[in-house]
Amino acid sequence: MTININTDTKTPQQNKKKENHGRLLVKCPDQPGIVAVLSKFLFDHESNIVESSQYSSDPEGGTFFIRLEFHCENLSEKRAQMEADFQEIAAHHSMEYRFAYGSERKRTAIFVSKEPYCLMELLWEWQNGDLETDIVVVISNHEDSRDMVEALGIPFYYIPANKDIRKQVEEEQIRLMEEYDVDLLILARYMQILTPEFVERFPNQIINIHHSFLPAFIGARPYERAFARGVKLIGATSHYVTNDLDEGPIIEQDIERVDHRDDVVELKKIGRQIERRVLAKAVKWHLEDRILVENNKTIVFH
Amino acid sequence: MTININTDTKTPQQNKKKENHGRLLVKCPDQPGIVAVLSKFLFDHESNIVESSQYSSDPEGGTFFIRLEFHCENLSEKRAQMEADFQEIAAHHSMEYRFAYGSERKRTAIFVSKEPYCLMELLWEWQNGDLETDIVVVISNHEDSRDMVEALGIPFYYIPANKDIRKQVEEEQIRLMEEYDVDLLILARYMQILTPEFVERFPNQIINIHHSFLPAFIGARPYERAFARGVKLIGATSHYVTNDLDEGPIIEQDIERVDHRDDVVELKKIGRQIERRVLAKAVKWHLEDRILVENNKTIVFH
Amino acid sequence: MTININTDTKTPQQNKKKENHGRLLVKCPDQPGIVAVLSKFLFDHESNIVESSQYSSDPEGGTFFIRLEFHCENLSEKRAQMEADFQEIAAHHSMEYRFAYGSERKRTAIFVSKEPYCLMELLWEWQNGDLETDIVVVISNHEDSRDMVEALGIPFYYIPANKDIRKQVEEEQIRLMEEYDVDLLILARYMQILTPEFVERFPNQIINIHHSFLPAFIGARPYERAFARGVKLIGATSHYVTNDLDEGPIIEQDIERVDHRDDVVELKKIGRQIERRVLAKAVKWHLEDRILVENNKTIVFH
Amino acid sequence: MTININTDTKTPQQNKKKENHGRLLVKCPDQPGIVAVLSKFLFDHESNIVESSQYSSDPEGGTFFIRLEFHCENLSEKRAQMEADFQEIAAHHSMEYRFAYGSERKRTAIFVSKEPYCLMELLWEWQNGDLETDIVVVISNHEDSRDMVEALGIPFYYIPANKDIRKQVEEEQIRLMEEYDVDLLILARYMQILTPEFVERFPNQIINIHHSFLPAFIGARPYERAFARGVKLIGATSHYVTNDLDEGPIIEQDIERVDHRDDVVELKKIGRQIERRVLAKAVKWHLEDRILVENNKTIVFH
Repeated sequence: MTININTDTKTPQQNKKKENHGRLLVKCPDQPGIVAVLSKFLFDHESNIVESSQYSSDPEGGTFFIRLEFHCENLSEKRAQMEADFQEIAAHHSMEYRFAYGSERKRTAIFVSKEPYCLMELLWEWQNGDLETDIVVVISNHEDSRDMVEALGIPFYYIPANKDIRKQVEEEQIRLMEEYDVDLLILARYMQILTPEFVERFPNQIINIHHSFLPAFIGARPYERAFARGVKLIGATSHYVTNDLDEGPIIEQDIERVDHRDDVVELKKIGRQIERRVLAKAVKWHLEDRILVENNKTIVFH
Repeated sequence: MTININTDTKTPQQNKKKENHGRLLVKCPDQPGIVAVLSKFLFDHESNIVESSQYSSDPEGGTFFIRLEFHCENLSEKRAQMEADFQEIAAHHSMEYRFAYGSERKRTAIFVSKEPYCLMELLWEWQNGDLETDIVVVISNHEDSRDMVEALGIPFYYIPANKDIRKQVEEEQIRLMEEYDVDLLILARYMQILTPEFVERFPNQIINIHHSFLPAFIGARPYERAFARGVKLIGATSHYVTNDLDEGPIIEQDIERVDHRDDVVELKKIGRQIERRVLAKAVKWHLEDRILVENNKTIVFH
Repeated sequence: MTININTDTKTPQQNKKKENHGRLLVKCPDQPGIVAVLSKFLFDHESNIVESSQYSSDPEGGTFFIRLEFHCENLSEKRAQMEADFQEIAAHHSMEYRFAYGSERKRTAIFVSKEPYCLMELLWEWQNGDLETDIVVVISNHEDSRDMVEALGIPFYYIPANKDIRKQVEEEQIRLMEEYDVDLLILARYMQILTPEFVERFPNQIINIHHSFLPAFIGARPYERAFARGVKLIGATSHYVTNDLDEGPIIEQDIERVDHRDDVVELKKIGRQIERRVLAKAVKWHLEDRILVENNKTIVFH
Repeated sequence: MTININTDTKTPQQNKKKENHGRLLVKCPDQPGIVAVLSKFLFDHESNIVESSQYSSDPEGGTFFIRLEFHCENLSEKRAQMEADFQEIAAHHSMEYRFAYGSERKRTAIFVSKEPYCLMELLWEWQNGDLETDIVVVISNHEDSRDMVEALGIPFYYIPANKDIRKQVEEEQIRLMEEYDVDLLILARYMQILTPEFVERFPNQIINIHHSFLPAFIGARPYERAFARGVKLIGATSHYVTNDLDEGPIIEQDIERVDHRDDVVELKKIGRQIERRVLAKAVKWHLEDRILVENNKTIVFH
């Protein structure tokens, strides 16, 4: 049985638009005229800028970042030429850059352990049409979420995991990432540590949700430690995974108010609500190519 | 005695920068190439874009809005030529536009009645160097705030007011606005109604703070009515003043949580905190030319 | 197939506690000694107060409200005597009162139309063990949610509805409320108007979620009107249903920040997140007997 | 010159009430019947409970805390007898307790260094009648705030401080605390470290504002470190001072959202707004005897 509750509010006309939608993300040394160069390039390639966000770490001698969202009729036919033409500009201005296309949805894998709520939130947003992605596979070291995932027609793999078999587990996971051609890995409360080899394979492509307001309560059992410290707010943090535990670039954070009456069980309940919305936002922004990473920090163009 | 607690953290170098800082705000029919035209214009005039925000009501047939903040060496010498050169571009693309310069601080008048807290907040932010303006005059229909204002070296005018002498009062006020060459009027809890003649004289130049979350509780005694209705949040709204009472373009709103124990006196106390921060934000954005008005709504480029 | 994702964190020991848990809610004219009388009564009946909240509209001549949560060994055996003994006290102090017991979960019906997200949130919280209730039936004028509901083993009734057949529809609904012995009706985005006859049958037992920050945007299409007005925050309100549309006692409200870029589709997406959490909180508090209604306002003892 | 902007909204009748207002705070081992004992005691002493809040760390074998606010005609005449009578009850139930009276305002000293904004906020709230205290002295290691303080008729002492003369500075400060009979010390951005000897003299009587969301960024330069880490929210924390730096019992915390564009200067500006409201709330609750300290955590009875 497949539960179908997709309530995508997009009209065919809107989906048509999506096909002719492109994004150009650029990072380069700041210098006068960069915006002129880029906007002229897009104009010359019959593209209309519909959204533009920029940031400069310092107008004098800093680094410049821009995200341009553009509309271009018959983009799929023109994009090869466009990308070819851009190479010269990029070389001339020492640009790192990336094109992305509305017609190419990113392919996402979700890793989950026992607690299903972050997975549920992502599946829900996805069914609502709020996440621009194909969720192509879910991997878990527990069987708990299988029914929920398979009911939506998504392949579910149960891979038991513990630190003794980590290498072998990750080999199997990497094989699946390749088989499903995955662009983004989401750790939706996946409670296993990843090896440096695994992490390095997916730079800025693994999003984790940490159940505290980082850098407070790095590491294990943050709710227990928040309770012990008597904080008046608890939080959650979504970040890209690096090889420094809980030290990767922060994408989004949020908090809720708590008080002395909230024991650890209650903190966890409240925390669940924060975790799921913080993770969902981070994933959404990643999928819309709104995030640039620089010096272990994120620039998020809302 | 003058209390001097200005803690401006700007260095002389930063103030130097400010002098070479300009802003260009443009509104025009949306069409491909607009960004290219504007960015090329600035580049050709040796200006480096340091911040850029744009919005289109609809990429096809809509209205396009952009705010460009730029840096230009010796801007004061070049600006006349720049403005002259821009006229042709503006005409060609049917642009409404406005240049603003960091070297020209807006001149602000504050109107206040009995309650001083919004006035105090503005004076405070101003002393901290957080408001890019010269507060040139304060006008009140009560004497209460005189000492506080004069202690800061700002002229204070007491103009008693009631509905029977409104015309005469406003004549005196307008005379002062002219004498002090005022660009912005802030109604910081000024509890007198302004006539249409007065309001029309200062389009999108009068900012009011209304003590409710508009459009809830339009009109008088909003806290009393919020109490009677039993709302769980109370708010405040800053907006430009038009001739429809409390119906002008909303600039900023915020709320605080309340509960059944909060009587009207308590709601007012909580509300004061909201009002002062909401008004201060709206004023700040206006002074930084971050607000465009369209169809009785604001576009605020944060 | 039944998807079982119940992750109730309660231990058997905690459930045992629940059985010996009682609540006493009292409303009476304020007068000295009331707390002494009530706390002595509970002590004399071997009950230990574990939570107590009180409120007085005015210590002199006002109305007094109290919610006492108590623990009593073998409560189920003692409660009949306890209730009998309380009658004299209640009569003497002109008390309205109500006992509630942890061992008796309220029976809840959910009404839903096409949009499933509020229903989903409630089912989710319920599966997590966060709602102290049995969801005994779901009624809808659309078939969309059937699979999701039946997968959880909850009876689902499709009752088409429109204003021409309202009387007949409500008869069927009332029959089901009786058949399932329902204590609480939740309108989880049920888009049909209820008749006064229906509403009067369930005083302070019907909880609705309205998709605006009441009293702003009473009535239909609040997101469209919020967009037109250009508000900077949108909200949602849960309230008990009375015969004045959107004018019943407010239980909970919350808001999110929006800006000029958010069109109506986006406002609705953001609003969905607010609606589901606001409704879930109101339901939770109702189920825990934390809400008293007085003069069309609620006293919520968090 | 004294600037008088006190806008106390209290009527003489309300002030009369305040005189007959008392508070009783109790901590004891939890056991059945405690509320009955206390409420009977107050009733027998002709006192009407107008507010009551309680908390038990665990109904079985835990610690019980209660705050009772009561009204009693001619309280000043009766209180001696009341306190005498309470001793037996307290001894019998192993209670720690404290009576407080609306007629006895706490006497407060404010310590400040260069940055005046927290001091200003406190003075403002105090002038508004929102702080139940007499601010009897301000001490600073800078002269900056003198005018502002003296304009309000409050004695201001300039005591230069650095780590080499700490002992001598603290002797002078303690002398002033004694001279002015101070109950509460507020460190309103006082940037000197206090010695253990000083701190131990004022247990749970010194409130500090720390400019981060503790336990994140304990120690110096939190805004610089928040910027370096790329957090998306910054915060402030008010806490009682103990001899573990920034590790004392947390009273209140709050946060604001920031983004990649906010440099350290901007973070500090935003932080100022958080710091002043967080400190003001903590002070208010302390003055209203709403805070109990247990195991390095606070119980705050809002």
